Amino acid sequence: MIFAKVIGTVVSTQKDPKLTGKKLLLCKEVDHSGKPLESYHVAVDAVQAGEDDFVLLTYGSAARMTDLTKDAPIDAVIMAVIDDVNVQESA
Amino acid sequence: MIFAKVIGTVVSTQKDPKLTGKKLLLCKEVDHSGKPLESYHVAVDAVQAGEDDFVLLTYGSAARMTDLTKDAPIDAVIMAVIDDVNVQESA
Amino acid sequence: MIFAKVIGTVVSTQKDPKLTGKKLLLCKEVDHSGKPLESYHVAVDAVQAGEDDFVLLTYGSAARMTDLTKDAPIDAVIMAVIDDVNVQESA
Amino acid sequence: MIFAKVIGTVVSTQKDPKLTGKKLLLCKEVDHSGKPLESYHVAVDAVQAGEDDFVLLTYGSAARMTDLTKDAPIDAVIMAVIDDVNVQESA
Amino acid sequence: MIFAKVIGTVVSTQKDPKLTGKKLLLCKEVDHSGKPLESYHVAVDAVQAGEDDFVLLTYGSAARMTDLTKDAPIDAVIMAVIDDVNVQESA
Repeated sequence: MIFAKVIGTVVSTQKDPKLTGKKLLLCKEVDHSGKPLESYHVAVDAVQAGEDDFVLLTYGSAARMTDLTKDAPIDAVIMAVIDDVNVQESA
Repeated sequence: MIFAKVIGTVVSTQKDPKLTGKKLLLCKEVDHSGKPLESYHVAVDAVQAGEDDFVLLTYGSAARMTDLTKDAPIDAVIMAVIDDVNVQESA
Repeated sequence: MIFAKVIGTVVSTQKDPKLTGKKLLLCKEVDHSGKPLESYHVAVDAVQAGEDDFVLLTYGSAARMTDLTKDAPIDAVIMAVIDDVNVQESA
Repeated sequence: MIFAKVIGTVVSTQKDPKLTGKKLLLCKEVDHSGKPLESYHVAVDAVQAGEDDFVLLTYGSAARMTDLTKDAPIDAVIMAVIDDVNVQESA
Repeated sequence: MIFAKVIGTVVSTQKDPKLTGKKLLLCKEVDHSGKPLESYHVAVDAVQAGEDDFVLLTYGSAARMTDLTKDAPIDAVIMAVIDDVNVQESA
């Protein structure tokens, strides 16, 4: 899984029927401290994430393992909003 | 999912039978504002996308989750034409 | 899918039994105009491609979706020989 | 599989129900000698790994092949703590 | 599939039960001529490869398609020892 920050929404009318009712969020990849990295990702939101939230993204077939995303043509899902990242002192 | 712009078509006669009747589109990856990036992708069109359209591409096993692409040997599908990307002001 | 050019063959005797009878081709990734890129790939040939052919490669689980490659431990397949790539003028 | 070192933990309350009871560890990718590389990964721990442990990470659908991670929306799992890496002298 | 050279072994006691009896080999990615590239990979050996062998690695769900690796949490397998790579003259 990778860290990301939700920064926007993607709107589409002409889409695969299995996308209906799924929120597409624009996410910017960040590191474990929340610092922005280069990549942008579009992911389905499975945990009611809001804008500015620090989240975890799952990629690939795993993205279809939530109740919301089962069998949908999507390859990325937000499956957790992060409360905290604890990095050990010696790291 | 990643953003792309449809810029052409790919024609093939000698191909796997499961590709028959599927439109192969040449796509250029773009960022969320539509600015061209480096990569090119070939994807099956599942939503009647046209040339110049700003679309979403799904990769991997998820590309076989549309009715059109079920069980086909393809790893990328266009599953949405994008109307709008809303980026929050503070991002 | 990505574009590639077939540039050679790979010969193996000591291999998984499910590879028997499958042709392993050495492919160089190219762009949509056929210009060579950096990467090399080894793919199973599912469409009787020949050397020098301009082809499409499918990656991942999709590579097992042809009759030839079903259930085999391979992650890349040639599933189309390309006749033509039409790029729109404004692109 | 890739080598990693466990360097922290990720805490989340608002998450997919299938993540309940799974420990999310922050891992830094390292090479075979344990030297830190650039990438960070978040992985579920399936082998009671502890902080500072030198571990193996499995990616993709394989990450759901442990008893703990079956059917969960996760794309990376720690499935081995490494005792030793033996590199042959001529390498 | 990618080319690699076997350069060592990885030893683990604390691991997922499905890894028992599977040999984990340290592989260095090479090009088609055997020239070392940058990446290292850990893969399960399904074809009795030995150190210094020039081999093919399969990634992703395909790595579970050998009898040895079925249902195991591994994402890379050695499924062929290479005898020869024939590159056509004009390439």
